[in-house]
Amino acid sequence: MESQNSSRSCKNLFIAVVLMTLFSAIFYMYYEPSVNWLNCPAVPKHDVCGNICINALKTPNQIQIVNNTCMVNFTSLRHQLTQTEAASSQGGDLDTILLIWMWPFGHPFDLGLCSSMYNIHGCHLTVDKSQFNKAHGVLFHHRDIYGDLSNMPKLPRPPIQKWVWMNMESPSNSGQRSNLNNLFNLTTTYRHDSDIMVPYGRISENTGGKKHDEIPHKNKLVCWIVSNWNSDFKRSKYYEELKEHISIETYGNHFNRRISAKDYSDVVSSCKFYLSFENAIHQDYITEKLYNPLSLGTVPVVLGPPRKNYEEFIPGSAFIHVDDFNSPKELAEHLKLLDQNDDLYRQFFTWKEHFVARTSFFGPEQACHACDHIRRNKNYRVVNDLNSWYWG
Amino acid sequence: MESQNSSRSCKNLFIAVVLMTLFSAIFYMYYEPSVNWLNCPAVPKHDVCGNICINALKTPNQIQIVNNTCMVNFTSLRHQLTQTEAASSQGGDLDTILLIWMWPFGHPFDLGLCSSMYNIHGCHLTVDKSQFNKAHGVLFHHRDIYGDLSNMPKLPRPPIQKWVWMNMESPSNSGQRSNLNNLFNLTTTYRHDSDIMVPYGRISENTGGKKHDEIPHKNKLVCWIVSNWNSDFKRSKYYEELKEHISIETYGNHFNRRISAKDYSDVVSSCKFYLSFENAIHQDYITEKLYNPLSLGTVPVVLGPPRKNYEEFIPGSAFIHVDDFNSPKELAEHLKLLDQNDDLYRQFFTWKEHFVARTSFFGPEQACHACDHIRRNKNYRVVNDLNSWYWG
Repeated sequence: MESQNSSRSCKNLFIAVVLMTLFSAIFYMYYEPSVNWLNCPAVPKHDVCGNICINALKTPNQIQIVNNTCMVNFTSLRHQLTQTEAASSQGGDLDTILLIWMWPFGHPFDLGLCSSMYNIHGCHLTVDKSQFNKAHGVLFHHRDIYGDLSNMPKLPRPPIQKWVWMNMESPSNSGQRSNLNNLFNLTTTYRHDSDIMVPYGRISENTGGKKHDEIPHKNKLVCWIVSNWNSDFKRSKYYEELKEHISIETYGNHFNRRISAKDYSDVVSSCKFYLSFENAIHQDYITEKLYNPLSLGTVPVVLGPPRKNYEEFIPGSAFIHVDDFNSPKELAEHLKLLDQNDDLYRQFFTWKEHFVARTSFFGPEQACHACDHIRRNKNYRVVNDLNSWYWG
Repeated sequence: MESQNSSRSCKNLFIAVVLMTLFSAIFYMYYEPSVNWLNCPAVPKHDVCGNICINALKTPNQIQIVNNTCMVNFTSLRHQLTQTEAASSQGGDLDTILLIWMWPFGHPFDLGLCSSMYNIHGCHLTVDKSQFNKAHGVLFHHRDIYGDLSNMPKLPRPPIQKWVWMNMESPSNSGQRSNLNNLFNLTTTYRHDSDIMVPYGRISENTGGKKHDEIPHKNKLVCWIVSNWNSDFKRSKYYEELKEHISIETYGNHFNRRISAKDYSDVVSSCKFYLSFENAIHQDYITEKLYNPLSLGTVPVVLGPPRKNYEEFIPGSAFIHVDDFNSPKELAEHLKLLDQNDDLYRQFFTWKEHFVARTSFFGPEQACHACDHIRRNKNYRVVNDLNSWYWG
């Protein structure tokens, strides 16, 4: 009886061992090492070719200088440098810390979204100023820097810390501060020549696979939502003339017709055309006024930098530019023509075959991408003439 | 006896189970999932906030539009969006393919080094033109494009493929081609305002930890290696005047004193100063003529763009600029003074406390970074006026 019991429990144990082995095998199949089992001290050789983890090389002949340029004997090199070695030479698995010095416009946002929203890993955002000395970067939002810089850090910048200047407003809407030169290391703005360009939106490849080519139902021709009214703005003058020739549904504070956040999408998508009129005209200053209607299935009529500048970032067939017409009257006539010709109107949406429009998230988008940039680029960099770069 | 045997093998089995359990536990500790166990169809919601894998959201209230801007209820969102979901919405684990259309200057390089040299993963470089239709990007080296573009692809560019224009030569040394406008999507050059900036070298954080602060033994004062001689170049004129006031060790074809690749480092590091004179003066055009001496422990005397431009990329105390002096004679006198004052001379090396100089690898550096950029940025982009951007 005892032998029978013992043999049964042995059988159970045997099954347990088989299961555990299977379990381990499955883990092994999907396992990718997150620790570096190899030892590479990552001290670059002190010469002109000090570009890689040279200690991993067995013979010095693997690096040569030909015509003053580094040439690597790649075939012998590639078998010795492993991913983990390269990773360890770049700081390994330590998180990059970005200290957000002031909440942009005083609005807090969640600091833990870089990986889930932007697939950016290894970045730790914080607003805890006690981490100043540990931080790899510090983000400063231009509008929130006091004119006399009295709310900037009192401590000097640690040598390998990067100070990032963030500004999404155009030069026209950004008050200058004194002494901004030689203070920052990186810029993050809407401008293409920023270190970290964060546009107000993007036309991106539709990686989801599903097409979004249905045009929403339309019951209005031309719409405009405006709150920041200034009769001197180019857009105000253009609107005043345009409305003499075509009916425009207007919303926003200026027209005493506020629109709730809830209704915004419904209203914009129900218009055939939306006036994407920027409040100031600057290179690359192309805002959510363009990307919102694009993503809502409405054709934007843009007033801003030249058509060429728009066409760097969105297909030329996706929008109408006021400069395409000699006068607001001509534009109005063209819009009326398109209203009567569905085939012509539909051609504004051909870009949706391959692309989708997205609007950026102010705050996390800049912070996560700035942190990612600092993580990947350990290069010395100083913005030594911010004033003339930005305000010209 | 049978019962005893059975009990002994039970004991062995028990030990095996314990070991397997431990083994599994260790794997579990280091395990990071490389597959997505969750199902997120990754179809962005077709509205203004279509920025993330919205299907993962349980309630529409998690995304709101406030002042025309996307606001996310982050607290409820973050628990639902996982890294793997974001990764799958960005194309998952598929490699990004970059087709190198022509070997730059006809010189092949190893295509398998992106991960080991630059810690860039998920990039597949190829020169196999049959992969044209599958490639996410195609790299074209300017110098190797025929004037009539007859060696460019005959097939039209697939809509989501990116064509990358690569050029490391300055406008002065780059022949223009007709019809380059609206042809490319991205630029990779030495210019800071390129989509993918690849400088000729970098001053980077010394992440290795070991300092390289010993100055190599010096037995020459001023050195210059030059092959591309043109008496009209600014540098030739400057040299002609400078050599009247200070002894300069000259090498290179022009001086009938060729230097072997093997001897290059020894020669440059044995000079106190090296004439880092660029052959053409352009914004950001700062070449290996600067980064080689910096990495070899020699003080560069630069002639090129203004000091301010250099100081964007290297510390101002690391070099001497010819513009700091009213004449070559004044510069010569200053160099002689530094030769006599070791403390002053040593101050040119203080940057080495935190940084190291590195020279770029022509070819793999541009290709790997271009591929990485394409992998991370799925944005629509066209370089619609390359000619005026580059040749001004």
